[in-house]
Parts: sequence; structure tokens; C-alpha cells
Amino acid sequence: MPELKSSVIQNLRRRLHEIIFEADTPAGKLFDVVLILSIIASVLIVMMDSIATLHLAYGRLFHYCEWFFTLLFTLEYLLRLACIGRPLRYAGSFYGVVDLLSILPSYVSLFLPSGKYFLVIRILRLLRVFRVLKLVQYVGESNYLQRALWASRRKILVFLFSVSLLLIIFGAIMYIVEGPEHGFSSIPRSIYWAIVTMTTVGYGDISPQTGIGQAIASIIMIVGYGIIAIPTGIVTSEMVFKQNISTQACPECGAEGHDHQAMFCKQCGAKLNPEVRV
Amino acid sequence: MPELKSSVIQNLRRRLHEIIFEADTPAGKLFDVVLILSIIASVLIVMMDSIATLHLAYGRLFHYCEWFFTLLFTLEYLLRLACIGRPLRYAGSFYGVVDLLSILPSYVSLFLPSGKYFLVIRILRLLRVFRVLKLVQYVGESNYLQRALWASRRKILVFLFSVSLLLIIFGAIMYIVEGPEHGFSSIPRSIYWAIVTMTTVGYGDISPQTGIGQAIASIIMIVGYGIIAIPTGIVTSEMVFKQNISTQACPECGAEGHDHQAMFCKQCGAKLNPEVRV
Amino acid sequence: MPELKSSVIQNLRRRLHEIIFEADTPAGKLFDVVLILSIIASVLIVMMDSIATLHLAYGRLFHYCEWFFTLLFTLEYLLRLACIGRPLRYAGSFYGVVDLLSILPSYVSLFLPSGKYFLVIRILRLLRVFRVLKLVQYVGESNYLQRALWASRRKILVFLFSVSLLLIIFGAIMYIVEGPEHGFSSIPRSIYWAIVTMTTVGYGDISPQTGIGQAIASIIMIVGYGIIAIPTGIVTSEMVFKQNISTQACPECGAEGHDHQAMFCKQCGAKLNPEVRV
Amino acid sequence: MPELKSSVIQNLRRRLHEIIFEADTPAGKLFDVVLILSIIASVLIVMMDSIATLHLAYGRLFHYCEWFFTLLFTLEYLLRLACIGRPLRYAGSFYGVVDLLSILPSYVSLFLPSGKYFLVIRILRLLRVFRVLKLVQYVGESNYLQRALWASRRKILVFLFSVSLLLIIFGAIMYIVEGPEHGFSSIPRSIYWAIVTMTTVGYGDISPQTGIGQAIASIIMIVGYGIIAIPTGIVTSEMVFKQNISTQACPECGAEGHDHQAMFCKQCGAKLNPEVRV
Repeated sequence: MPELKSSVIQNLRRRLHEIIFEADTPAGKLFDVVLILSIIASVLIVMMDSIATLHLAYGRLFHYCEWFFTLLFTLEYLLRLACIGRPLRYAGSFYGVVDLLSILPSYVSLFLPSGKYFLVIRILRLLRVFRVLKLVQYVGESNYLQRALWASRRKILVFLFSVSLLLIIFGAIMYIVEGPEHGFSSIPRSIYWAIVTMTTVGYGDISPQTGIGQAIASIIMIVGYGIIAIPTGIVTSEMVFKQNISTQACPECGAEGHDHQAMFCKQCGAKLNPEVRV
Repeated sequence: MPELKSSVIQNLRRRLHEIIFEADTPAGKLFDVVLILSIIASVLIVMMDSIATLHLAYGRLFHYCEWFFTLLFTLEYLLRLACIGRPLRYAGSFYGVVDLLSILPSYVSLFLPSGKYFLVIRILRLLRVFRVLKLVQYVGESNYLQRALWASRRKILVFLFSVSLLLIIFGAIMYIVEGPEHGFSSIPRSIYWAIVTMTTVGYGDISPQTGIGQAIASIIMIVGYGIIAIPTGIVTSEMVFKQNISTQACPECGAEGHDHQAMFCKQCGAKLNPEVRV
Repeated sequence: MPELKSSVIQNLRRRLHEIIFEADTPAGKLFDVVLILSIIASVLIVMMDSIATLHLAYGRLFHYCEWFFTLLFTLEYLLRLACIGRPLRYAGSFYGVVDLLSILPSYVSLFLPSGKYFLVIRILRLLRVFRVLKLVQYVGESNYLQRALWASRRKILVFLFSVSLLLIIFGAIMYIVEGPEHGFSSIPRSIYWAIVTMTTVGYGDISPQTGIGQAIASIIMIVGYGIIAIPTGIVTSEMVFKQNISTQACPECGAEGHDHQAMFCKQCGAKLNPEVRV
Repeated sequence: MPELKSSVIQNLRRRLHEIIFEADTPAGKLFDVVLILSIIASVLIVMMDSIATLHLAYGRLFHYCEWFFTLLFTLEYLLRLACIGRPLRYAGSFYGVVDLLSILPSYVSLFLPSGKYFLVIRILRLLRVFRVLKLVQYVGESNYLQRALWASRRKILVFLFSVSLLLIIFGAIMYIVEGPEHGFSSIPRSIYWAIVTMTTVGYGDISPQTGIGQAIASIIMIVGYGIIAIPTGIVTSEMVFKQNISTQACPECGAEGHDHQAMFCKQCGAKLNPEVRV
């Protein structure tokens, strides 16, 4: 009897795993679609609840809905833990952490009311949408973008580091030149202004009033306008390089740089291996 | 007699088709130029009518002009339907829909006065201008741009999807940090602010007041300033890739898309003609 | 005697031409440097004259200086006409027109006082600076940029044309949605707002107040943020393509795409013609 | 005895040099980490001192800390001078100048109180961080970026020069069109506005009010939006070019800079090694 019971549980776990983690069976597909719709509905409710007029009219309804979705997602999280082979590995993975963070704010809000707005982090669960909907090509494109960004991470960090030093120095100069009477009330606030200016956002809540301040601001703007070329150049050259180049070398002459559709080496005309055309 | 009549009508239809849809005969050319001028004049009148002072002075005149052009374009639309071989196909095509939308707002405005401003959609009819004026090279360039954008559509969608999730989360965080008393009156409004900031537009109608809010805003700005590199990289690498492609077709199998340095066809291995490798 | 006189004049003209149009002799070099300094001084005076406090204190002095430079440049213009072989050709050239426009505003200001500020057009005369100072490499780079822009002019025109249509339609929609009570007082003004928004300038003098208006504005911003990729892609791909590629084909195998420093064909190893390595 | 003394000093100098200039020994590593933390702490104190509320509460403490770090860095500067072989060369190098500028503001502030905020220039000392922490790859990436920028310096200067002329002319035109009553109070201020607009910063502290002014502003915005493509194109094409270069040196003549597909050395015509063509 215990064996049978164990086998039944085993069976149930396998079935649950199929529904929750796979999307090939009709049940799995249905589960995923319902999940995606629930996530969207749940985030929309959090958003609407933040609008004062809607909160006054339907606040109680929203409250119940939020708890309904929280309990639903809590149940789902527990089931995921129950039916997966290595629960700890899932709990520590990116999606596992996001799934947990998606339910915590509701429980936190029992003690800290404004915490509930963190529920919008649920929106990150939508990142599953590509895998779930079998949009394989999109997953490929997404990986391509991630690889290009990853390959340029060091250059981008060096760039951000240099720009940060520049922003701090420009901020301090503007604090000395313009001073608190023109809104540059401290160095951190001047650095904030320098960021607003160099990124070309330009709110206008703080803006230089003196001639010298405007001259220095002009320099910051032109620098900011120009150095946008650097991250763009980094990412673009990475993409151009990666773009459509197969990693396959010609089996005859070793030439590289064939594109994905190539069937013959463009240097010696030898036949390429169709298996590895990736 | 009916036969003759039918033949006359047939003849008339062919002639009309030549004038309206072709631009090779003097009559066809004249028709197209008059059409383009009418579109421009008609849109200018809608624009001028929206200026309060001009409306007071010439409102009645503008009103007559608008109806004159509407009736003219209605007549033209009916003639197009009458003289084309497959009217339904035209009516369902991009230009057919635009042509219909260009006359509807006037009739709608009989019931809903402000609807008439939608007449500016007529401006889309100008997209014909390249074809009409036989600016073949421009049509080619336009196709080139469209192909490059089309080829990168998936990457751009993945990018927009990821950025949207980011904007929603940033919006919610700023709503919690700054709150309604600093203008962040709801999550949707905070998301609007996040869009204004990340795209570096920066109206300044809403701007963070607290130190933490300004720190988070700085992060959004720098992220927005940096990730502009991604769509630019996508489109640029697509264009660079397209530009590095020789126009030569393989003399054996007719395959295209060889790069400029290629010596052998990548599809069938045949030797390419070194003379035309341009 | 008349012959001698004519020869003296002829000599004088040749000497003048050498000084004014060439920069190889010490006298020619001196002339050019004095000219550049005069242009800068003259523009600085116009700028300072526009500052109210300086105008009150030194207005009379500025006035004399402006006329001094105007008479100087008038004399120079007449001498240029006198000593050049084909005066009409010079007068019709880009620099000839700029030289004339640089002196006209002063004479116009006798009738129309505010016209004198157009004197800043003199600054365009500085474009000569590269040629004059023998900065040959800069002339080369400048030509390179001009060629890249020229090669992409059609794509950029198609892009600008499409964006203009989009801006007109977005402007009209926002006029209907927001209306005069929120600052969108006419369609032209709404189009101005759409331009301010799509180019990510974002003054904030007009900004949408309604929820729908902010939603549409968000779309315009994201579109504007994204399509900056298109002109960038156009110009970049043009430059990447042009970058450092010699137009020389290998005399042996006809391979192209050698860079400027290449001495041997990278495909067959044959010697390239060192004469045409451009 | 003097010999022994001299040898002791010699020894001390070598040991000091090892600690201060190298980062291979534990002592040298410790010194560098302490130095970096001191720099960060010192800059943070200057920043906090500029915040009015913190200054009131802890001004005296900050004052002592600033002098503590200044004396520390002064001592370090003197030790660097003492233990390096060629002190003048160090004093004249980039880091030597930065090290000196990092202590001067404190002494200047004895006479000119606001001078102390220039202490934030200390932040530039952090540029050592890559070398110190043995982040060799980051140094390489940093050099790569510097080379790409250096290679495009002439094109960027030509671009900035042309844009400056444009900004001056646009500024003058807007001064004439809008005039002091709309905030365009002088030509320099109008030029400042033109820079704010063309770089797409758009504070909104000055914005055109008249129809003509808004039309001209629209042109400036679209120009500014479009020509961002030029510096981006310059830097990107430089990076793409650099990235397409194989690291292989010719086995015969040692020439470098062959592209990935090259089969023969472009300098001497020797066959390249197909194995290492990466």
C-alpha cells in the first residue's frame, strides 16, 4: 500500500510538473495562458488601486482581488516547489526569486501598508512569455541581444566609470559657480543636475542663471550630446561583428566568417558541414 | 448598340484608369500633380481653421473649402473604384483605406463637429508622391529602410517589451518613494514620468523632489541614455550587413547575398565572376 | 607710357591676388591671419552689442567698430573682385556670396536698425580657416564627412518626409484630445509640440494634462526615442562602408576591398599598384 | 658610517617605492586599498559638507576630517617625490599633477573659503583603480576606447567646428526674431538657448513664443536630432573597423592589421598562417 501511494504521488508530481513547467500538453498550455492573464490582471489592479478616485470607489474590491491573486500565486509557488526535482535550485534561480518576490509584498503590507505597491514586480514574471508561447525566434533574438551586451560589458563599465568621475567634478564646479541661491543647493544636488543635463533629459527644475554657469552648462551639454556616440559605438560594433557570422571554420582551408546560410566556403569553394551551420 | 455602348464604357474606364492610376501620359501626370496640390491645400486649410483668430475671420470660407475638397476626393474615390479591375482589392489595400479615411471625417463632422480635424489624415496620401513623381531612387531607398526595419522587428519588439517591464517597475518605485504630494499621483502617472525621463524628453512638469527620488531618477536617466545604443545597434548592424552584400547572383544557381570578398558561391560552390564583384 | 602703366597694374593685380587668395607667401599668410582675427573680433563686437548693459556703456564704441570692420570688409570684397581673373564666378560662388552677405547688414541697418545683428553671418567666413591654415588633413576629414552625408541624402530625405507626415498626424490628434484649454491652441502649435517631444527636446512649455493625452504622448516619445536609430544607422553604415576602403581592384585577380595601406592583394598575394592607393 | 647610512636610506627608498608605486607585495596592495578608500571617504566628506543641514550639525568634524586627509595626501605626495627615481618627471605627469591639485584647494581655502570644494578633483585619483586592482582587461578596454576616440579626433573637431558656426547663426536669428521680451535677452544668451535646444536638453527656461520663432526652433531641433548621427557614425565606424582586424602578425615582415579574411600579408605579400586567422 505505501508503495502504491508513493507511486500515485510520484505520478501526480510528474503530471503537475508537466502542467506547470512544460507548455507542450493542452493542460500545460492552458495553465500558462491563465497564469499570464492572472499576472496582467493582478498588476492592472495594483495600478488602478493607486489612482485616488478609483481607490475611493473600488478600494475594497481591489483589496480582495489583490489577496485573491496573492493566495493564488502563493499556492502556485508552493506547487512549483513540490513538483520540481531540485526545489532549492529553482528557489535560487532568477525566476524562483521573482516568483517569491511577487507574493511577499502582500504579506509585508499587513505591517507596512505602502509595501503593497511593490506587487508590480510581478510584471517581471511576464519575461516567461517568450518561452511559454513557444516564440522560439524571439528567444533567439533575446539571447543575441544579451550576448552583445554581455560582450561589451567591460567597455560599458569603463565608460560609466569615467562619466561618473566627470559628473562629480562638473557638479562641484557648478555648485561653486552658481551656488545655493540659484538652486544648486549642495554638491549632490549639483551632481543630480549634471546627470539631468548630460543625459539630455533637461527637466528645467534647476537651471544655471549666471553667464559663466550657462557657459559651463553648454560644455556639459555638448559633451553629453557627443559621448552618447561611445556606448552606441560599443554596442553597434559588437552587433555588427556578431551579426550573422557562423562560428564554423572551413574544413578544407580553415577560413572563417561564413554567414549562416553559407553551404560552401567562400575562399576555396569546399563544402561546409551542414550540421554545424549555427 | 448595347455592344457599342459597352465598348465606349470599356474605353472610358481604360482611359480613366490610365489617368488616375498611371503617371506616364501627360493627362496622368497632370492629374497626379493636381491631386498632390489639392491634398496639401486641403490639409493647410484644416490647420489654419484650427487657429482661433483665423477661424473667426475666415471660418466660413474654410468651411466651404473643406467641403469642396471633400466632395472632390469623394468623387475621385468613386472613380477609382469604378475604373479599377478589382475594386475590393483596392478598397482593402493601404492606399484604399487611407483614401477612404481622407473623406470620412467631413461626413462624421456633420454629427461630431471636432471630428473634422481628423481630415489631416489626408496627409498620408502624400506617401504616393515618390511613385507619382517617378522618383524611382527614392522608392528604392524607402524600400531599403523598410527592409532593414522589418528584418530587425523581432529584436526591436524584444527590446520594447523589456523596456516596458522596466518602466512599469521604475514607475511603481517612484510612486512609493515620491508619492502624490510631489506630483507622482498614481502609478500610471509615475510610469508616464518614467517614460518622459527614460526617453530623455524631460518636460519637467513632474520631477522628483526627495534625495532618494533624485538618486533613482538619475539611474533611470543613465539607463535611458545608455540603452538608446541598443535599437541603434540593431538597425545599424542590419544596414551595415545589407550594405556589405554584393548584388551579384551566382552564375550557376542564381543565389544572391554573397559578400564583396566572396570568390565562390556559398550555396552551390560555383566560382563567382571576379569581374562583377562590386 | 600706357603700356608701362598697364603692366604696373597687371603686376599689382598679380601681387594682390597672391596676397589675398594664396597663403604660401609671408604676406599672404599674414593677410589671412589678420582676416581671421578681424572676423572673430567683428562677430564678438556684434554679440557684445546685443547685451543691454554693455550696449548702454559702450554702444557708441561698438557702433564705430562695426562700421570700421564693415568698411574694411567692403574694401577687401572690392579688391577680391578687382584682382581675380573671373570676378563673376567668384561673386556667385559660396564664399563670394558669404563675403557679400557679411557686409550688407551694416548698410541695411541704416534703414532697419535691427538688421545689423545679421552681421554674425560673418562667422561663416571662418569656414576658410582649414584651407587658410593649411590643415590639409582636416580638409580631407571634412570631405569624408560631406561625402558620407551626400551619399545618404536620399535615405535621410525619405526619413524626414515620413517623420513629417507622422508629426502632422500626431499634432492633429493631440489638438483634438487635449484642446486649447491645455495649451494645444491650434494644430500648428500642436505640431510644434510634437516636434519638441519626438526630438526628445521636451521644453515643458506645453505638456499633456489628460490621461489619454499622456498615453499618446508616451507613444510619440518612444517612437522618437527609437527612430533616432534610423538616421544614425544610415550615416553609420555609409561611413563603415566608406571607411578606409581603397577603390583599387587587384590587377591580378580583380579582388576589391583592400584598405589604404595594403601593398599586396589579400586574396591572391599579387602586388598592388602603389600609385593608385587612395 | 655615512656609507651605511646612505645604504639604509637607499634601502628605505626602494622599499617605499615598492609599497607606493607597485601593487604586487601585500604591503603595496594594502597601501593601494587604503589610498582608494581614503580618496572616496575624503570626497564624500566634501560632498556632505556642502549640504547645509549637515554642515550646521557636523561642520567642525568635517573641517577636521578634510585637513586630516589633506595632510595625509600631502605626506603621500612628498613621499612619492622622495622615493621615485625621477621626481620631476612624476610631478609633470598626469597623475603627478592630479595628486598635487588634490591637496592644493585646502591650502587655498585658508584665503578663499569656497575654494575647498575643488577638493572633489581628488576623485580623478580614482582613475588609478584599474591599474591598482590589476583589472588588466579593463585597462585594455579603456585603451581600446581611447584609441578609437583618438583616431576620430579630427573628424569630431571638424564636426564641432561646423556645429558651433551653426549655433552662433541660429542664436543670432532667434535674438532678432524673438527678442529680449521673450527671454532671448542677448545673442550669447540666444546661443545658449540654441545649444540647449540642439543637444535636445530642452530646459524650458527660455522657449520661443512667436509662430516664426517656433518654426525656426523646430528646424534647430530636427537638425540637432539628426546630426547626432554624425559623431555616432564616426565613432562606430572607427570601432567596427578596429574590431574587424585580426591580431595576427605577418610571419615574414611582422606587419599587423590584416582583416580576418586576408590570406596574404598586405605589406609584403607573404602567405598568412590560416590556422591563426582569428
